[in-house]
Amino acid sequence: MHTDTICAISTPFGVGGIAVIRISGENALSFVNRHCEPEAKQSSTSMDCFGRTSLAMTERKAIFCQFRNGDELIDEVVVTYFKAPRSYTGEDIVEISCHGSIYVQQKILEILIENGCRLANAGEFTQRAFLNGKMDLSQAEAVADLIHSQSEGSHRLAIEQLRGGFSEKIKQLRQELIDFTALLELELDFSEEDVEFADRERLLELLERIKTEIQTLSDSFKLGNALKSGIPVAIVGKPNVGKSTLLNALLNEEKAIVSEIPGTTRDTIEDTLNIRGTLFRFIDTAGLRESSDTIENIGIERTKKTIEKVQIVIVVDEVKGERRKAKGASPIAEQVDNGEVTLRPSPFTFRPNKQVIHVINKIDQANNIVCKNGEIPISAKNRIGIEKLIERLLEFADKQKVSDRTLVSNLRHYEALNRALAFIINSENALKSGISADLVAIDIRGALHHLGEITGEISADDVLGAVFSRFCIGK
Amino acid sequence: MHTDTICAISTPFGVGGIAVIRISGENALSFVNRHCEPEAKQSSTSMDCFGRTSLAMTERKAIFCQFRNGDELIDEVVVTYFKAPRSYTGEDIVEISCHGSIYVQQKILEILIENGCRLANAGEFTQRAFLNGKMDLSQAEAVADLIHSQSEGSHRLAIEQLRGGFSEKIKQLRQELIDFTALLELELDFSEEDVEFADRERLLELLERIKTEIQTLSDSFKLGNALKSGIPVAIVGKPNVGKSTLLNALLNEEKAIVSEIPGTTRDTIEDTLNIRGTLFRFIDTAGLRESSDTIENIGIERTKKTIEKVQIVIVVDEVKGERRKAKGASPIAEQVDNGEVTLRPSPFTFRPNKQVIHVINKIDQANNIVCKNGEIPISAKNRIGIEKLIERLLEFADKQKVSDRTLVSNLRHYEALNRALAFIINSENALKSGISADLVAIDIRGALHHLGEITGEISADDVLGAVFSRFCIGK
Repeated sequence: MHTDTICAISTPFGVGGIAVIRISGENALSFVNRHCEPEAKQSSTSMDCFGRTSLAMTERKAIFCQFRNGDELIDEVVVTYFKAPRSYTGEDIVEISCHGSIYVQQKILEILIENGCRLANAGEFTQRAFLNGKMDLSQAEAVADLIHSQSEGSHRLAIEQLRGGFSEKIKQLRQELIDFTALLELELDFSEEDVEFADRERLLELLERIKTEIQTLSDSFKLGNALKSGIPVAIVGKPNVGKSTLLNALLNEEKAIVSEIPGTTRDTIEDTLNIRGTLFRFIDTAGLRESSDTIENIGIERTKKTIEKVQIVIVVDEVKGERRKAKGASPIAEQVDNGEVTLRPSPFTFRPNKQVIHVINKIDQANNIVCKNGEIPISAKNRIGIEKLIERLLEFADKQKVSDRTLVSNLRHYEALNRALAFIINSENALKSGISADLVAIDIRGALHHLGEITGEISADDVLGAVFSRFCIGK
Repeated sequence: MHTDTICAISTPFGVGGIAVIRISGENALSFVNRHCEPEAKQSSTSMDCFGRTSLAMTERKAIFCQFRNGDELIDEVVVTYFKAPRSYTGEDIVEISCHGSIYVQQKILEILIENGCRLANAGEFTQRAFLNGKMDLSQAEAVADLIHSQSEGSHRLAIEQLRGGFSEKIKQLRQELIDFTALLELELDFSEEDVEFADRERLLELLERIKTEIQTLSDSFKLGNALKSGIPVAIVGKPNVGKSTLLNALLNEEKAIVSEIPGTTRDTIEDTLNIRGTLFRFIDTAGLRESSDTIENIGIERTKKTIEKVQIVIVVDEVKGERRKAKGASPIAEQVDNGEVTLRPSPFTFRPNKQVIHVINKIDQANNIVCKNGEIPISAKNRIGIEKLIERLLEFADKQKVSDRTLVSNLRHYEALNRALAFIINSENALKSGISADLVAIDIRGALHHLGEITGEISADDVLGAVFSRFCIGK
């Protein structure tokens, strides 16, 4: 089925000290034998009867070689052989560690391809690992998540999923459902005799428990996804209170903090920011004010929708000179006792499940600042008070950390869980209304199918295609 | 002297399938033992008397491990140990191959640094290899050249220099000079007796030969540098004949050609172009015409200077409708029998050691095209004839290939050679004019010093600093 030998540059693209080219497949070793000549005086060379040295590839032993194309020396490389099935893909793998020159990397790849090796597709090494039973589908997805992880939270989720904790949970749920259907199907075999092997009460209890477990996993998606994609934070306020300046101040502040570690960069999405290991996704919004302008009102509607989706709202107000001291000055947001917040003007009430942080900006423009309890005085322009705001954000993020729970962070898993859940609820209803066992069994099989999709025990080509296209080439 | 242990990410910066972190120094192994826990059931683990498995690091054996920070699992990695002195730096080296996530790479690096490992400076691994006698200075420079090589030519130069051919030549020259001075200094010991151990005729012959060899190496710099930095090509012509369009066409044409190989990119200097393995450096020039405008004349003067420096001149003229057919139409350039070329207007004569390629542009605007022998009709806009022009460029480049000669491509080496040469010429003159042996010996020592600088037998800290700052971190 997968007999061809594939190759790719597995290290990031670019110039570096070294780069690694990976070859996987049954001919991996023959490519190396053709092109790699061991440096003399190494214990890993052997002399044949004609006095020629040849590579004696010991499994997992790094051997210093010359990579040659005929007479031409391409590079001095280190070659390591991972023998099937004790390799990442489960096939023979050879890793060539060469100098990190783009020319050398391309040249070695070219030579391999000219000689019949095929350039690997995105994720094809991991796909082979999956097809050869080295990992299940959810673990394979965790590899991609791990590679793209940008924060402590997303990294931890990926590592746990890679270690198979989530797969184990799904497999266990499936097993319970399989046991359940076994009982139901036993009844079907004896349907003429109208017996009930499966105690309906016990079956319902079991379904209820499974339902709760799937529901809990499904509910964890919101948190899991926030950890993976960043905790969503909306920055709202009236026009010109300094929302964008605050966003820039947050980005810059952090930039200064992380710059002690060389090479740390922010994601190209300017609003995603890794603050000390926690990823936040900042969403700058259109200024809120009463307006008759249609376009502007569309922006305000969008702001309201954004607020509905986020977990943290930073409400920015500005110092109003002496007016702030005066009673009756209308702040943009008011939090009432039940935790609900009303934005003014254009009254808009949040659902109370959000964290609201009030900041009073432009304190550099006032001599006398009166802040209510909980409000954070800042000057986004002069970067005053930003550290305090960051602390408040991190306090909230810490509350979110539930390290011993299994969290679902993958949209595909979330959808499969929800589909399985719908089948479970159907079967529960069917069971309660006394519908015949064979119809209940159909629903259970539906649930089994969707749970099986998560780990790849049941997999369609298009699902596999979608999963592995997320990978980079070389993994 | 270099007892601390250094670490760095050695693979290119970014996200990829895998990344490699390199640790070098006497504590390299202890870092691994502290943080890497072998996966169970591997032959490379050993059980101690308390039943704990621990790493049994076999030299050069790739071992599958968990990289942990206390209880926290950071990544599943492959660790390889290169025992001193059989490693790149000559010290103990451990290479950790982890998932190519920026987060994971940074995290592992952070943990190592927190535990007392020092982040390596640019080129510090190679610097240690040099200081530990694993390679000489010219070979160390070849490593940087190899990593930055962009073309077949520059790659070949770097590989040859890395293999030590050039170093060998310099060492041989130095040895001959040392033998020479030995004879001179023997005379000095007996200076009271006024004997001449060294036959003046033979000494002069020897100096003459050494001078020729150094001169040849120095002369090779022009070609070596062209291979490394690109063969310089000037595109000249009257204003608006389509010089820039031609440059773009060349860049685009090639872009299409190389795009079959994924990841191939041009250098950020837009004018440098790798055409099938040969690097060209295209220089677009100001249009040549008679002008009274001061600024424009400065541009034209600069064009003339550019032409003096390049090896190939592409002279662009445009189709002039029916006028091209008429006798007496003045082309922009005329090549006369001795190979000299005169540019008109503002007559300017090239030195004859250049290759001149005439192209007639805008053939899409004429029905009837008359080209003289050797002229290439093109339409830069419609990319007609560009392939033919590229062929002509490559023909010239092929003539330049002298594969069995040692070429100098490093400016530092070129300057050292010229300084050595000046001392040799001085000593030759001194010898001829019968100046006493001790004064001749001073000149010879000067030459020895500068030759020794090339291989690093004589090295100053500032020279080393300058050499290794060219490297990327991690090599």
